[in-house]
Amino acid sequence: MTIKIGIVGYGNLGKGVECAIRHNPDMELAAVFTRRDPETLKILTEGVKVYSYEEAESKKEFIDVLILCGGSATDLPAQTPELVKHFNVVDSFDTHAKIPEHFAAVDTAAAQGKKVGIISVGWDPGMFSLNRLYAGAVLPGGHDYTFWGRGVSQGHSDAIRRIKGVKDARQYTIPVDKALKEVREGKNPELTVREKHTRECFVVAEEGADLDRIREEIVTMPNYFSDYDTTVHFISEEELLRDHKKIPHGGFVIRTGKTGWEDENSHVIEYSLKLDSNPEFTASVLTSYARAAYRLNQEGQSGCKTVFDVAPAYLSPLSGEELRRHLL
Amino acid sequence: MTIKIGIVGYGNLGKGVECAIRHNPDMELAAVFTRRDPETLKILTEGVKVYSYEEAESKKEFIDVLILCGGSATDLPAQTPELVKHFNVVDSFDTHAKIPEHFAAVDTAAAQGKKVGIISVGWDPGMFSLNRLYAGAVLPGGHDYTFWGRGVSQGHSDAIRRIKGVKDARQYTIPVDKALKEVREGKNPELTVREKHTRECFVVAEEGADLDRIREEIVTMPNYFSDYDTTVHFISEEELLRDHKKIPHGGFVIRTGKTGWEDENSHVIEYSLKLDSNPEFTASVLTSYARAAYRLNQEGQSGCKTVFDVAPAYLSPLSGEELRRHLL
Repeated sequence: MTIKIGIVGYGNLGKGVECAIRHNPDMELAAVFTRRDPETLKILTEGVKVYSYEEAESKKEFIDVLILCGGSATDLPAQTPELVKHFNVVDSFDTHAKIPEHFAAVDTAAAQGKKVGIISVGWDPGMFSLNRLYAGAVLPGGHDYTFWGRGVSQGHSDAIRRIKGVKDARQYTIPVDKALKEVREGKNPELTVREKHTRECFVVAEEGADLDRIREEIVTMPNYFSDYDTTVHFISEEELLRDHKKIPHGGFVIRTGKTGWEDENSHVIEYSLKLDSNPEFTASVLTSYARAAYRLNQEGQSGCKTVFDVAPAYLSPLSGEELRRHLL
Repeated sequence: MTIKIGIVGYGNLGKGVECAIRHNPDMELAAVFTRRDPETLKILTEGVKVYSYEEAESKKEFIDVLILCGGSATDLPAQTPELVKHFNVVDSFDTHAKIPEHFAAVDTAAAQGKKVGIISVGWDPGMFSLNRLYAGAVLPGGHDYTFWGRGVSQGHSDAIRRIKGVKDARQYTIPVDKALKEVREGKNPELTVREKHTRECFVVAEEGADLDRIREEIVTMPNYFSDYDTTVHFISEEELLRDHKKIPHGGFVIRTGKTGWEDENSHVIEYSLKLDSNPEFTASVLTSYARAAYRLNQEGQSGCKTVFDVAPAYLSPLSGEELRRHLL
């Protein structure tokens, strides 16, 4: 018997979940739900239907877990509490400051529906958070560092696109090697934002646009660029489509700390990701936690959970015995 | 109220646990139990008593968790099932092939005593196992690699010391850079043991010993060295004590895998440790899992568990709310 997954929202993330389900033989895609006109949506999996978002509830008996692939700004704060009344759900809510609020709303609704809702799943929040927790518990009193990149920041790319005379743009966030090196050496540097990351922008300008003005507007843009060392490259539309069509990302979580009676020994714990596709990897994490949501609910659990609350074994299709035999 | 920890066995690992407790303000060392004459043992923590192993049971009302610091060959197979009848326990049992058997014995005894026993805790098995599980669940169909080192192998050092004419020795296991590089590039190489690790030996010979014969005996020793490229350096006792007194170790767990409808995107997940002191780091992991054992038992749970069965939040002294606010 396979776990029946429903996808809510079919952008890059939703499509990534569809692909991830194909890589997990114990799961199958049951349905896709969209806010768009279902007729206009062409999905990859043969024989699976697309429904409007409003129809979701009426399909609940055919679905074990819904993976919510909407955005954190407006979709998930409404959808996750609404849907967890009827379904086990997993989302990738990533507005850090609002996680406590989102958790509370999902927890109340999940308890009401006797379902499991796992929120803020992905790689940051998600796998990176797990590594911060494990490393922090093992090396208390140590220092934590998170670096992101090299990878495309959608928010920064969008900010450039809003500048007059810009046709398209891609922005890469890049960790600074010198800072990474100092952190790994256990020097516990105090790093400014400028010292941790640089920003590299590839910009397609409209014909006749003032390139110097565009460059100046980018590098001085508050919040997004003014606190960073930013490089701007003007390229052609063909180059952008050819060389920058992927959505890579990744990063590093490093903790250094001391042990010994007099702190005489130093240790470095490092976790890193190098991802060709940010949405597909995030989708793969969501999909493994869908398995966990299903199993936890089968055991009678309910309420809101995060990656911190889920024992690792729930993520794997292997049995406890197989895990101990092959992975321990 | 602090968690009261007892240490069973006071070698490098037990001493490491004593130091780790000092780094965790929510814990205190309650007692040390030893197979040696308690009178001969001088521990670091003032005011804490040393008892004989046989006295442990009589102290159970003063202890929340016992951390077992004996060896996997003979100590733990007997001690863990025996002690988990009366105590929550954590051990670092690391004989991979015998983990299923050990798990079964501890599970039966723990159920009987209504206590929690967490076995095979440390970094491998332990943190490395966790990373194999998480990465495997997220990237099904990928490839897993574990490299160890640069670090001292106690077993290999002991093997050299048994050779006639050898006074002392230290053996380092070293991962091969070329292999690491190929793995990180996602080439999925099939690696022989020789291609994964090299071995470097620092040997103090007795006066007048035949160095060529010793070198030959080392590099041809079956199981330990004959399948590896091994380098032997003869050094003085002073040099050994000066340059090789620490017990460093570490390693890498790397998983590469593909996502996308046609496997078009590649990903690399890497976890690495660089440790000045193998026993002190292992002890730090054990100590964080002691917190988990205590809490799980407080919730009414019992039985044998491994790192796979423990939700990460149980390891941290922070509350769920604090974790979500600061680490997620």
